[in-house]
Amino acid sequence: MEKLSLCLLVIISLSNAFAQTDMIGKAFVFPKESENSYVSLTARLTKPLTAFTVCLRVYTDLNRDYSLFSYATKTQYNEILLFRGKTAVYSISVGGADVVFKPHQSSEPMHFCMTWESTSGITELWVDGKPMVRRSLKRGYSLGTQASIILGQEQDAFAGGFEKNQCLVGDIGDVNMWDYVLSPEEINTVYAGGTFSPNVLNWRALRYEMSGEVYVKPQLWP
Amino acid sequence: MEKLSLCLLVIISLSNAFAQTDMIGKAFVFPKESENSYVSLTARLTKPLTAFTVCLRVYTDLNRDYSLFSYATKTQYNEILLFRGKTAVYSISVGGADVVFKPHQSSEPMHFCMTWESTSGITELWVDGKPMVRRSLKRGYSLGTQASIILGQEQDAFAGGFEKNQCLVGDIGDVNMWDYVLSPEEINTVYAGGTFSPNVLNWRALRYEMSGEVYVKPQLWP
Amino acid sequence: MEKLSLCLLVIISLSNAFAQTDMIGKAFVFPKESENSYVSLTARLTKPLTAFTVCLRVYTDLNRDYSLFSYATKTQYNEILLFRGKTAVYSISVGGADVVFKPHQSSEPMHFCMTWESTSGITELWVDGKPMVRRSLKRGYSLGTQASIILGQEQDAFAGGFEKNQCLVGDIGDVNMWDYVLSPEEINTVYAGGTFSPNVLNWRALRYEMSGEVYVKPQLWP
Amino acid sequence: MEKLSLCLLVIISLSNAFAQTDMIGKAFVFPKESENSYVSLTARLTKPLTAFTVCLRVYTDLNRDYSLFSYATKTQYNEILLFRGKTAVYSISVGGADVVFKPHQSSEPMHFCMTWESTSGITELWVDGKPMVRRSLKRGYSLGTQASIILGQEQDAFAGGFEKNQCLVGDIGDVNMWDYVLSPEEINTVYAGGTFSPNVLNWRALRYEMSGEVYVKPQLWP
Amino acid sequence: MEKLSLCLLVIISLSNAFAQTDMIGKAFVFPKESENSYVSLTARLTKPLTAFTVCLRVYTDLNRDYSLFSYATKTQYNEILLFRGKTAVYSISVGGADVVFKPHQSSEPMHFCMTWESTSGITELWVDGKPMVRRSLKRGYSLGTQASIILGQEQDAFAGGFEKNQCLVGDIGDVNMWDYVLSPEEINTVYAGGTFSPNVLNWRALRYEMSGEVYVKPQLWP
Repeated sequence: MEKLSLCLLVIISLSNAFAQTDMIGKAFVFPKESENSYVSLTARLTKPLTAFTVCLRVYTDLNRDYSLFSYATKTQYNEILLFRGKTAVYSISVGGADVVFKPHQSSEPMHFCMTWESTSGITELWVDGKPMVRRSLKRGYSLGTQASIILGQEQDAFAGGFEKNQCLVGDIGDVNMWDYVLSPEEINTVYAGGTFSPNVLNWRALRYEMSGEVYVKPQLWP
Repeated sequence: MEKLSLCLLVIISLSNAFAQTDMIGKAFVFPKESENSYVSLTARLTKPLTAFTVCLRVYTDLNRDYSLFSYATKTQYNEILLFRGKTAVYSISVGGADVVFKPHQSSEPMHFCMTWESTSGITELWVDGKPMVRRSLKRGYSLGTQASIILGQEQDAFAGGFEKNQCLVGDIGDVNMWDYVLSPEEINTVYAGGTFSPNVLNWRALRYEMSGEVYVKPQLWP
Repeated sequence: MEKLSLCLLVIISLSNAFAQTDMIGKAFVFPKESENSYVSLTARLTKPLTAFTVCLRVYTDLNRDYSLFSYATKTQYNEILLFRGKTAVYSISVGGADVVFKPHQSSEPMHFCMTWESTSGITELWVDGKPMVRRSLKRGYSLGTQASIILGQEQDAFAGGFEKNQCLVGDIGDVNMWDYVLSPEEINTVYAGGTFSPNVLNWRALRYEMSGEVYVKPQLWP
Repeated sequence: MEKLSLCLLVIISLSNAFAQTDMIGKAFVFPKESENSYVSLTARLTKPLTAFTVCLRVYTDLNRDYSLFSYATKTQYNEILLFRGKTAVYSISVGGADVVFKPHQSSEPMHFCMTWESTSGITELWVDGKPMVRRSLKRGYSLGTQASIILGQEQDAFAGGFEKNQCLVGDIGDVNMWDYVLSPEEINTVYAGGTFSPNVLNWRALRYEMSGEVYVKPQLWP
Repeated sequence: MEKLSLCLLVIISLSNAFAQTDMIGKAFVFPKESENSYVSLTARLTKPLTAFTVCLRVYTDLNRDYSLFSYATKTQYNEILLFRGKTAVYSISVGGADVVFKPHQSSEPMHFCMTWESTSGITELWVDGKPMVRRSLKRGYSLGTQASIILGQEQDAFAGGFEKNQCLVGDIGDVNMWDYVLSPEEINTVYAGGTFSPNVLNWRALRYEMSGEVYVKPQLWP
């Protein structure tokens, strides 16, 4: 009998690990500052990434640094990082190098899409459907795939090294990731609510684990 | 004959206490600063509150502190308090603890909805249909139900302790209360004029008592 | 023959005094600063006023004090006064007491409605269809009816005491007065061009006398 | 044969002087600062003017004084002058006296209408269809008709006395003049593109002579 | 066999030189600051230019000088130059002389059209469909046709003399050139997306050569 329950346990935790949730209309809510509340996402990654698009929506009134999307590998903690710096400057890091953008400020929920392509190094940041001017990062680089993807905290170590004064306080949702660069039209469609079957992270079939004071609640944006 | 009139008196005052008024299109008007003008509301509360939503509309040009909604119990005067602080900062108190929000300023009548839920402590403030970023307050707390609910003054004692320089001067109306958290869609509907059958305080079947210079007049907002 | 012409003269001046003019689409124009240009209005007042609504439209670019509507009795020169003070603050006086409002500033023609009610003392000022916050003035007071109503000047004596630096330079029109308080809907209708058969002063049947450099011209507002 | 060519010459220069041009969709362009580039307009004036309306459109980014419309007689150089002063203040002169207006500033082409009436002295300036507050000028005055009407320069002498730092650099068009005061509705119609058969200067049948670097080009405004 | 491959090589490079590409929906992207990334355009020019219209769209967030369009001849490096100066001032040079314009600032992609005509010297700059005030440049001048037309860099020598701190970082597209002055209506049509068969440079049949880090990508503007 013992073996059976053991198997069951394994299946449940496994299935838990592989349980997919349709998060449409929902958001992760971090209502308090903390260094141990986060959400870990499980990505479908088979081969090294030579391009990506990540889109998400964040609602916060923080006026300090915080991380929006942290993708670390064992060799590079800032393998992909979307980070809000001091004076409302947003940086994208790829392979530890970063470029900076200064979008419009907003007290509303904000939608972000970042893209990167190894062949040209061209890096794009779209904010609320508006493209920033293109930059260039790590032309020729390939991204590691054994990654720890964290929402709510910035990884200064693989799946760890969180700092309270860089955590997110507020809501984050509509997180999707593709292993190629979406076209301007596609990004505008995503901003308007379309999804384009994301093939790395899919908000409508999300595998995630929550830790600390974070809740799933109805999203505050339409 | 005396007993009869006595009974009549009791019935009238009782019926008065339980008289319900449909206040649609109306508002309470506090045209002058005072420490003894207020409206006391009678709520339908049977069991301890572990969640609530309160919505109301206020029109004032005060540039100092004032109370919008004061719900006191004998043990906690700030059991629920929606309060406008000095620099147009609004605070929500639950069980004496409070969180602060900084919405847009407006010289127009303003609509407020505040929600709180014990299980997560998540506290929301909506101003003119726009949600502020979610906060956290008194996770696990239960609210007392033998409450004194006062409009126009801030209670620093049970149904008393009013201060002239914290009173409301202006109009207040559309006051509704629920014993659960309305969804974002429901709050937007209330803001647009819907009511969702409030089950604690119902502006369309209000039991209240006025005291001092406060009048019921046509509301100034559409 | 002499008696006849005398009679005729009396009839003409009397009829002049009682001649009613439909002023629709017109305005009184005070094109220059002066202390002797004004318009005197004859009101239909039989019993003491315990409430009133006065609406009018003014177009000026003056940046100093000036009177918009001056209603004096022999015992109280500021029985009713709508006055623009130094820093674009507008005051309403009733029976010599006054309250102050700070509406939005505008370089366009502005529409004003002021109301007052003795029973509650509630005093309202509407500017361009927008209600200011209600105030309180002279609860229980009654207004004298043997009044001198003057446009263009401020009375510091009954039908006199004019000061050049408080006169109106610009256009004034659409002057109507009621002996009751119009509802918010009615005031909005008046602002949009409706009239609601004013029973004290009626712009469409106005009895007035002009003095000094003031002209009747097409109104500059639509 | 000589007499014939002489006659021809006279006819041509005369016909030139009386040639009427339909200037619809066109503008006079002064692309450079100069003291000798101007356009002289020939008006149809038979009797002394006791009222007028002048409308025109100007597009310039000058930040100094310049003349928009200069109508001089041998006895009064500023018989009619529309002039832009230092701090974006516009003055209207009639018979050498002037009044000042401070309209909104604009980096777009601006439409001006000015009116004056001897009987009341009432002077109006309309800018982009918006009336300034009425002023008063030279009540009872009559304007001389043997006039020199100049665009592009300000006359400090009859048809002369030009100063480089008061010339117009930019485009001027849609110049029309009437010998009466247009009503508010008519002025709004002119601003929207109507013409109301101007009887003194008619842009659609204009008699003019150009001098210096000034060109007729398609107008830059719709 | 050797001769054949030689011929093939010549044909390919020639055809390359004369290959026309339909660039609709695309843009040249300069993602990094450099002094050797540029695009050279081949124009269809047979006779000396006595007029031109150049239109293009640029998206950059540079806050320093940079060149938008550089047309040099062996005798005059600034034969035609559209240049953004320090304080968001834009200059047009013709034959080495220049005039300056101060359009509205924008953080969006901006559309520019510049025109010049020898007969009058009239020079126009249109920004986002809005005409600046006309200027005057090099009346009577003729433009050389053996030109080097460069995007991304400013020529201080024929097809050279590039400086890193005057290069373009961002996107440039919709580059069209005519050998005459388009009318206001035509320029508005081009701004709205029409093309008017440009007869000197045609974005829909473009002959160009890229050098350094510059890429052809989907354009970021609609």
